[in-house]
Amino acid sequence: MLRLYDYWESGNCYKVRLLLSQLGVPFERVHLDILKGETRTPEFFAKNPNHRLPLVEWPDGRRLSESDAILWHLAEGTSFIPQDPWERAQILQWMFFEQYSHEPYIAVVRFWHFAGLVDQNRAILPEKMERGYHALSVMEDHLESNSCFVGGRYTIADIALYAYTHVADEGGFDLTKFSRVRDWLGRVRSQPGHVKITDQVGRLVSWP
Amino acid sequence: MLRLYDYWESGNCYKVRLLLSQLGVPFERVHLDILKGETRTPEFFAKNPNHRLPLVEWPDGRRLSESDAILWHLAEGTSFIPQDPWERAQILQWMFFEQYSHEPYIAVVRFWHFAGLVDQNRAILPEKMERGYHALSVMEDHLESNSCFVGGRYTIADIALYAYTHVADEGGFDLTKFSRVRDWLGRVRSQPGHVKITDQVGRLVSWP
Repeated sequence: MLRLYDYWESGNCYKVRLLLSQLGVPFERVHLDILKGETRTPEFFAKNPNHRLPLVEWPDGRRLSESDAILWHLAEGTSFIPQDPWERAQILQWMFFEQYSHEPYIAVVRFWHFAGLVDQNRAILPEKMERGYHALSVMEDHLESNSCFVGGRYTIADIALYAYTHVADEGGFDLTKFSRVRDWLGRVRSQPGHVKITDQVGRLVSWP
Repeated sequence: MLRLYDYWESGNCYKVRLLLSQLGVPFERVHLDILKGETRTPEFFAKNPNHRLPLVEWPDGRRLSESDAILWHLAEGTSFIPQDPWERAQILQWMFFEQYSHEPYIAVVRFWHFAGLVDQNRAILPEKMERGYHALSVMEDHLESNSCFVGGRYTIADIALYAYTHVADEGGFDLTKFSRVRDWLGRVRSQPGHVKITDQVGRLVSWP
């Protein structure tokens, strides 16, 4: 069975849980607590030298890291990824936007909040917030004339961007003025098979 | 003709120049000086609301941003990207690694050096350097048993990682102990059609 090395509060991990659930693919789940250093062990380092979650492992031993690369590979050949080359390029554009211009601000500030790291990062918090709001404004602009991020239908680009946007408030981001983003969040939530970031999906297994 | 909105010192832009040169695709080039704020204009904002370079524009008006998404789209159907789904997944894994765990450290510190921003970032420099060296160590480990990053041959994963690794010294990174990375840099440089980051490729045009 497919195995996901997972941390339940991570939006990057949630992306994979959400897609697997919507694909109806059974999986087992190893929970590693980042805050307790459980990804900084020799055992996990042997699985992923970059010691990041999520990591997906197949029964034959193949492993893949980087949440958006995992989404792409799992979605290939399904309705969650288009066949048209130009739409596929746009999927990647939005996923790289997510990892470079969105996650490092919106996800990182949220992490500081729940890990108790806000005070020690107080000096750089305003810039992080400003850049997070900029990412939200880019999304808001795009959603002026688009119901979803690519091709007018729900794809892995929406999953990638939903993961941390829908919990941006946990990092102190106010979505009030981003009405199109909020409407789009609702459309994502209404997709068949949607699960929440807090839903305990997959079969929890102990490791190592 | 394909148009690249470009800044010549940017490794992200260089990736696109390098691939286009190796593909033998003619292109015109609009040079925008980031340091002079030339990407922060209403004209460029209309092209890319995330106001980042590189940006590629086709004669029919389609535009694509995010360097690694551009590489993927331009390389599709060529020898620079494999057909095998598992190898393609690994290409994406390394490109997301590059944008999340490599570029924000190695490229950003280099930028601070040539933009005169080292002093004002002195407090966070050690962590940036440490994370940059970690990225180099992940690459060094992988190259212990691999001549290139994916599938034993030169692909866009190598182009993506080469862009800022080969100028890491300009950010104060010492590659002396990364012998496999240095050997791989040499293999990339020896590929047919290789151009340097300083080579004036493409036809320079004025804009707007």
